[in-house]
Amino acid sequence: MKEFKKTDRTTITRLPKRGSYDQETIHAILDEALYCTLAWVHEGKPFQIPTGFVRIGDKVYVHGSVGSFYMRQLVAGQLPVCLAATMMDGIVLARSAFHHSVNYRSVVLFANAEQVTDKQELYDALEAFTEKMCPGRWADVRKPTDNEWKATMVISLKIDEVSAKIRTGPPKDDEEDYDLDIWAGVQPLKELRGVVIPDPALKPGVAIPDYLKQ
Amino acid sequence: MKEFKKTDRTTITRLPKRGSYDQETIHAILDEALYCTLAWVHEGKPFQIPTGFVRIGDKVYVHGSVGSFYMRQLVAGQLPVCLAATMMDGIVLARSAFHHSVNYRSVVLFANAEQVTDKQELYDALEAFTEKMCPGRWADVRKPTDNEWKATMVISLKIDEVSAKIRTGPPKDDEEDYDLDIWAGVQPLKELRGVVIPDPALKPGVAIPDYLKQ
Repeated sequence: MKEFKKTDRTTITRLPKRGSYDQETIHAILDEALYCTLAWVHEGKPFQIPTGFVRIGDKVYVHGSVGSFYMRQLVAGQLPVCLAATMMDGIVLARSAFHHSVNYRSVVLFANAEQVTDKQELYDALEAFTEKMCPGRWADVRKPTDNEWKATMVISLKIDEVSAKIRTGPPKDDEEDYDLDIWAGVQPLKELRGVVIPDPALKPGVAIPDYLKQ
Repeated sequence: MKEFKKTDRTTITRLPKRGSYDQETIHAILDEALYCTLAWVHEGKPFQIPTGFVRIGDKVYVHGSVGSFYMRQLVAGQLPVCLAATMMDGIVLARSAFHHSVNYRSVVLFANAEQVTDKQELYDALEAFTEKMCPGRWADVRKPTDNEWKATMVISLKIDEVSAKIRTGPPKDDEEDYDLDIWAGVQPLKELRGVVIPDPALKPGVAIPDYLKQ
């Protein structure tokens, strides 16, 4: 079990018991979250963008177009970025308004953006990203052409300065409130994948692949 | 129909057709999203945090503890922040790996953090926040005491410099790929609220309120 070293930026000061620096915990959150937000500084002001990502080993990969202004900014200066990935797991309904909360799992990562120039690393990142979004998909699709590869920029972020924050379980109320006639508990939240909708332009006779059947 | 004015920061340069500056569209995304990420700059570097929020009129409200380091930082300097709220609506499965995408609705908002000092505005924001997370809840709960109100800091952000970005619909493939024997379509994603789990410490006989029954 590896623990990441706390830094000034990753030490959780507010409700520190919810903090985790455990590698396995952090990897699991990064692997489940379908998107992240990537924040950076431009001319002294904060920017952020939601984007897909994938983890391989001790790096997180984000891809975009080589024409993307923000991607070019990030790699040109190997800018410091802050990535956050969050899953909302439930609404925590306490007896008091004050103790209402949410169950969640989040990761915040600080790193400098590096452009991936190694072809194999870039291929692997995009294949892993496709498989993360839809397990089983890569084997089926028409693979990228040389020009498509060239149109794609991939940024890597080292997973090193990182922390997770997690809340689970029932509400915590003040001792004297437990006797109130107020219902308390958790309403779970879950992101579900629905029944697939075929492209109206789908070629007749092409069946839904097994990995998309529910 | 009000359109927000585009600025250098909110003009969508990448796939501009997905951009929207329409007030109704932006409000609807802010009202549906259960959390946002708030990014700011500290000592020249980017930070961000996931947090709950609620919109009332032309302001977004974020609350936290008066002891929260980041909240105090933000209001002390009325710092510029960037807020993002995103809903993932589907995985877009194209015939080519390159044209895979996601359907999503996101808002990115730039504003300076202002501490809410007016008591009524603070009360209204916290009531609206509770009602957003769980419609019907506020009438039931034990209301905040004076000390609880004092322990809560609320920040407001003016909705003015803002844009939305939205993708909907089926995949778009290259013309020559439509004849391939590859299934294509959309896998919808939906955040569902599950059956509530009572607090193990629930007072016997307290029934689940109607607004939490499915």
